[in-house]
Amino acid sequence: MSSAAFDEYLGLWRGRVDSALDRILPPVDQAPGVIHEAMRYTVFAGGKRLRPILCLLSAKAAGGTEEEAMPAACAVEMIHAFSLVHDDLPAMDDDDLRRGKPTNHKVFGEGMAVLAGDGLLNHAFATVALIARDDRIAESVRVLAHAVGTAGLIGGQVEDLLGEELEPTAAAVERIHRMKTGALFAGCCRLGVLAAGGCREVLERLTRYAELLGLAFQIVDDVLDETGGDEAFGKTAGKDREEGKMTWPAVVGLSASIARARELAGEARELVAGLPAEPEFAGLAVKVVERTH
Amino acid sequence: MSSAAFDEYLGLWRGRVDSALDRILPPVDQAPGVIHEAMRYTVFAGGKRLRPILCLLSAKAAGGTEEEAMPAACAVEMIHAFSLVHDDLPAMDDDDLRRGKPTNHKVFGEGMAVLAGDGLLNHAFATVALIARDDRIAESVRVLAHAVGTAGLIGGQVEDLLGEELEPTAAAVERIHRMKTGALFAGCCRLGVLAAGGCREVLERLTRYAELLGLAFQIVDDVLDETGGDEAFGKTAGKDREEGKMTWPAVVGLSASIARARELAGEARELVAGLPAEPEFAGLAVKVVERTH
Repeated sequence: MSSAAFDEYLGLWRGRVDSALDRILPPVDQAPGVIHEAMRYTVFAGGKRLRPILCLLSAKAAGGTEEEAMPAACAVEMIHAFSLVHDDLPAMDDDDLRRGKPTNHKVFGEGMAVLAGDGLLNHAFATVALIARDDRIAESVRVLAHAVGTAGLIGGQVEDLLGEELEPTAAAVERIHRMKTGALFAGCCRLGVLAAGGCREVLERLTRYAELLGLAFQIVDDVLDETGGDEAFGKTAGKDREEGKMTWPAVVGLSASIARARELAGEARELVAGLPAEPEFAGLAVKVVERTH
Repeated sequence: MSSAAFDEYLGLWRGRVDSALDRILPPVDQAPGVIHEAMRYTVFAGGKRLRPILCLLSAKAAGGTEEEAMPAACAVEMIHAFSLVHDDLPAMDDDDLRRGKPTNHKVFGEGMAVLAGDGLLNHAFATVALIARDDRIAESVRVLAHAVGTAGLIGGQVEDLLGEELEPTAAAVERIHRMKTGALFAGCCRLGVLAAGGCREVLERLTRYAELLGLAFQIVDDVLDETGGDEAFGKTAGKDREEGKMTWPAVVGLSASIARARELAGEARELVAGLPAEPEFAGLAVKVVERTH
């Protein structure tokens, strides 16, 4: 698949994910409107929809269609948005900007941002329950809760919060990355395979692909935080490093970080060889490493 | 059932709920331990376990056993604890005391309290997914997400946050009470009936019972906030009124509030007449109205 054809594919599914999110999120004219506005504000603040697309591609790789995984895809994007809203709070990272726009609490106030994050987390589970088959819902809820829980995303944010007082080491940074990013990436792929009723072998291969991709993604994130300006990256540049956060460049330096991200993406590509959606998965691995924002 | 026998029944099931919660919540020796400690701190800070007991009794009323509904019962208690942790945050009600003890953020810090609440909300869904039958899990997830969402508990907290600027009216206060308390009470009963595979008629009767009980409970809460000292009530007395919160006594006065709570509890009792767990449900309605803390 050419780069242009892949961009077209991504654009198509990004549009479909956005339409589905718009359909599934409570409308702003439904009371209490302000929280629905706050929930939508962060969901529609211009993300790449990488997690939902991982989920949709996984359904395709498992021999199903992208559409089958649409509720799960929307759920993981709501989880991602929830984590951004709470992570940006003054009590957490205290960020004023996200993707070049004022963060949720800057627009709606802290109390409303706490509730909007709660609303998104809760609605993600309501959305997984829209999957057509009940037996797949039960397992999907378990997979999602595991990816989000204290052994995954939330646990990673805990380590992040505690880690500000510790000396960064490669092992500690990788552990946090696995929890904060790898667990939800893996959850996206597992949910996609589940929604399509895929086999265990594809499930395990894609789980591993997603973990490697998640690590690569997070390393690139850390690199961009060091090198990108506010305008390019949409948040306050160099902030993580200034605060002594656990980042890959802080441990091994910039160029070794970039090399490590490329190596991880290469390993990830090998894992998807021969799967129905191989070209798209390979294209995604390239995108993750070569992105500039 | 005598009052003493009912107290014994409550004590028995409170103990079993506590054991189940202890089994189901992640242990503190599992990393990251501090968030598991924070989650357990509020769950085990001495609640009445009213919501889980409503859930267990509903399973019994639907012709099943209390044990069948234990995962759902634990889930609703985690939801209750999540709502307390986030509600007490400085950005929300800013409470230092809860049930006579320092609130979660006072002990663990604001960032950790946000994450502990998130962890409890997420773990509630993981816990519902422990129900033995997959088809009942799917429907239970939908019921729980609806009770917690922006048309229920979270929506009620939004209205509460916004309501501080509005003139309290009976209609507005009742709407907030329905969302903040009634929706989760109703969810408890619905989850219990579902777990036991009960019929629609019992489901509808218990839903209505729970809504009325929830309103009565919240009115008594408002009354105790006016009349109880810090020691008796375990939180800062008179605080809601001082902040111009939407409370029943603020609208109709104390004695009319107490009369209204008794009336609602009486109506609730009529709804459970003839059900297998009638004595327990009736006893619960009395407890809710006559409680002093």
